[in-house]
Amino acid sequence: MRALCKAVLVLALSAVPALADPLPSWNDTDTKSAIIGFVDRVTDPASPDYVPPADRIATFDNDGNLWAEQPIYFQLIYALDRVKERAEADPSILSTDALKAAAEGDLETLAAGGIEGLLEVLAVSHAGISVEDFQADVNAWFDSARHPTTGMRYDEMIYQPMLELLSYLRDEGFQTWIVSGGGVHFIRAFAERAYNIPPEQVMGSAGPTEYVDGQVMKLPGIDFVDDKEGKPVGIDSRIGKRPIFASGNSDGDFAMLEYTTSGDGPGFGLLLHHTDAEREFAYDREGHVGVLNRGLDEGPDRGWVIVDMARDWSRVWP
Amino acid sequence: MRALCKAVLVLALSAVPALADPLPSWNDTDTKSAIIGFVDRVTDPASPDYVPPADRIATFDNDGNLWAEQPIYFQLIYALDRVKERAEADPSILSTDALKAAAEGDLETLAAGGIEGLLEVLAVSHAGISVEDFQADVNAWFDSARHPTTGMRYDEMIYQPMLELLSYLRDEGFQTWIVSGGGVHFIRAFAERAYNIPPEQVMGSAGPTEYVDGQVMKLPGIDFVDDKEGKPVGIDSRIGKRPIFASGNSDGDFAMLEYTTSGDGPGFGLLLHHTDAEREFAYDREGHVGVLNRGLDEGPDRGWVIVDMARDWSRVWP
Repeated sequence: MRALCKAVLVLALSAVPALADPLPSWNDTDTKSAIIGFVDRVTDPASPDYVPPADRIATFDNDGNLWAEQPIYFQLIYALDRVKERAEADPSILSTDALKAAAEGDLETLAAGGIEGLLEVLAVSHAGISVEDFQADVNAWFDSARHPTTGMRYDEMIYQPMLELLSYLRDEGFQTWIVSGGGVHFIRAFAERAYNIPPEQVMGSAGPTEYVDGQVMKLPGIDFVDDKEGKPVGIDSRIGKRPIFASGNSDGDFAMLEYTTSGDGPGFGLLLHHTDAEREFAYDREGHVGVLNRGLDEGPDRGWVIVDMARDWSRVWP
Repeated sequence: MRALCKAVLVLALSAVPALADPLPSWNDTDTKSAIIGFVDRVTDPASPDYVPPADRIATFDNDGNLWAEQPIYFQLIYALDRVKERAEADPSILSTDALKAAAEGDLETLAAGGIEGLLEVLAVSHAGISVEDFQADVNAWFDSARHPTTGMRYDEMIYQPMLELLSYLRDEGFQTWIVSGGGVHFIRAFAERAYNIPPEQVMGSAGPTEYVDGQVMKLPGIDFVDDKEGKPVGIDSRIGKRPIFASGNSDGDFAMLEYTTSGDGPGFGLLLHHTDAEREFAYDREGHVGVLNRGLDEGPDRGWVIVDMARDWSRVWP
C-alpha cells in the first residue's frame, strides 16, 4: 500500500511541469536573481513596483552587448571590405589618404584621419545606394565574411545569454529595443533574423537620406550619433517613454542607464563587463572600442548590476 | 411540415451573428468598399496580395486627417496662447515683431515674418522645458482651450470615421502610425487618449533636444520637418519598412502616398477631401493649411481613393 502511495505521489509530482528556467545560459548568481527579481516585481499586479505592459520598455546597446565588437566594430569591417572591393574595380576612388588606408586595412592611418577620414569611408561604403539595396548588400557580406580570429559568421557572434534575456523580457510583456551607436540601416539588415527584433524597434546612428521616386536613398554624412547623451535623446525621439530596463557595456551607454534609472518608478540598469578572454574577449578601461570606466566606478552605487561574463554566463555563443 | 422547416430555417439563420460593420460611420459607397476590399485582400492567406501581419504598416497624417486643422493648425493656436500668457507675466519677452504679433493673435503679421518669426514663437512656447513638463502643459491647455467656431475641445475635434478606420486596421493586424508635419511631442501628449496610438507609433516634426541630468529638454529650432519628402524619410528612419496603407489630406502627404503605393507588393493610398462646409470645413486647392492640388489631379490615375467627406461619412465627430 505504501509502495502504491509512493508510486502515485511520484506520478503526480512528475505531472507538475517544472518551472522552466527563462535564462538557462546564465549561472545561478546574484546577477541572474537580480534580473529575475526585477522582472517579477514590475510584472506582478500586486507589487508596488508594478508597471503596465505598455510602459515596459527595455533598451539594449548592440556592439559588445548583443554581439561582439572585437577586434573592431563589425560594421567598420564591412565598410573596409566594401572600399577594398570597389577600389579593385575602380582604383581611382582611392582619392584620399583615409580611403587608401581603408582599402589596405591600415587602421592606424585611418584612425589618424579622424572623423573626416571615417566620413570618407562611409561615403564610399554606405551612401549613393537605396536603403533596400544597401541592406541586401550587408546580408550578402554576412554570407561571405568571416571573423578573423573565431572564423565565425559575424551575425552568429551574438550572445546566447542576451538572446535568452531578450526573449524572457518579451515573454513578460516588454518591448525590446536596440539603441545602438552603430548605423540603423546596418543593424536592421540582420536584427530580426538574429534577435527577433523588428526594424521599427531598432534605432541607431544615421546619415541623411533623400526620398526620390519611390525610393529612400542613403547620402554621405552623419545626421545623428546615437551614443552617450544621444541615446536618451534618441529614445525620447523614437519611443517617447522612459525605459524601465536598459542594458549596455560601455560608457557610451552611461546616459541611457542613468535616464532609465532616474525616473519616478522602478528602473533597472545592466552593464556587461567583458571578463572572458578565453571564450570571448577581456577588455574594459582602455582600448578603441567598448571603453568602460565610469560605469564600473559609479554603476554599483547607482544600483546597476554588472554582469561578469566569465562568472555569470555558462555559455557565450548560441 | 413546411411551416416547421421554415421556422427551423429562420431560427438557424438568426443564430448566425450578422457580421458587424467595421466602419459604421462610413456610408456604403465605393470608397468604403475599396477600403474593406483592400484589407480583405492583404489579410487573406489565400490571396496573392497577402501581407504577413509584421508588414501591415499603416501611416496617417494628423492635421486635417485625424483631427481638424481650421481655421489654423491647433498646435499654432496653442503656441499663440502660450506666448500671450507668458507676455502677460513678463511683457519684456515680446522682443520681436513676430512675438508681438503672436501675443496679439495677428496672424497676418506673423505670417509675414516667415519661418524666422515662427521659430521665435516656437522658442517661447515649445522650448526651455522638459518633454514631460511640456506635455503636461499641452494637456492643461486642452482642458481649458475651446475652438473659436465649434466651441469644442480641440482634442475632441477628431474624426469618428477615422477612429473607426484606425480601429478596424488594428483589428486586422495592422500597426497604425501617425506621420505628421505637426510636432511629435505635441501629438504624443494626446494621441494615446484620442486615437489609441502609443507614443512610439507617433512621428512628427521635431526640434533639437538635450539630455541633462535624467531629463530630456526641448531646445529652440527645428531639426526635422516631417512633411512632403520628409514623410518617407521619417518613415524609413523610424519604421524601416515601406507602409502598405497611407492616409492623408494634403499635398504634404503626396510623397508618403507615392512611397506607399510604389513598392513591389500591394499598397493603398487614401486622400481625405474636405467637402463638407456644413458639418466641418470645405477647402482644397487654396488656403494656408491643407492645400490639395496634386493629389486631386494625379491621385485617381495612381489608384488612390479620394474620400468625399460630405458623401462618404455619415457623421464627422465622435
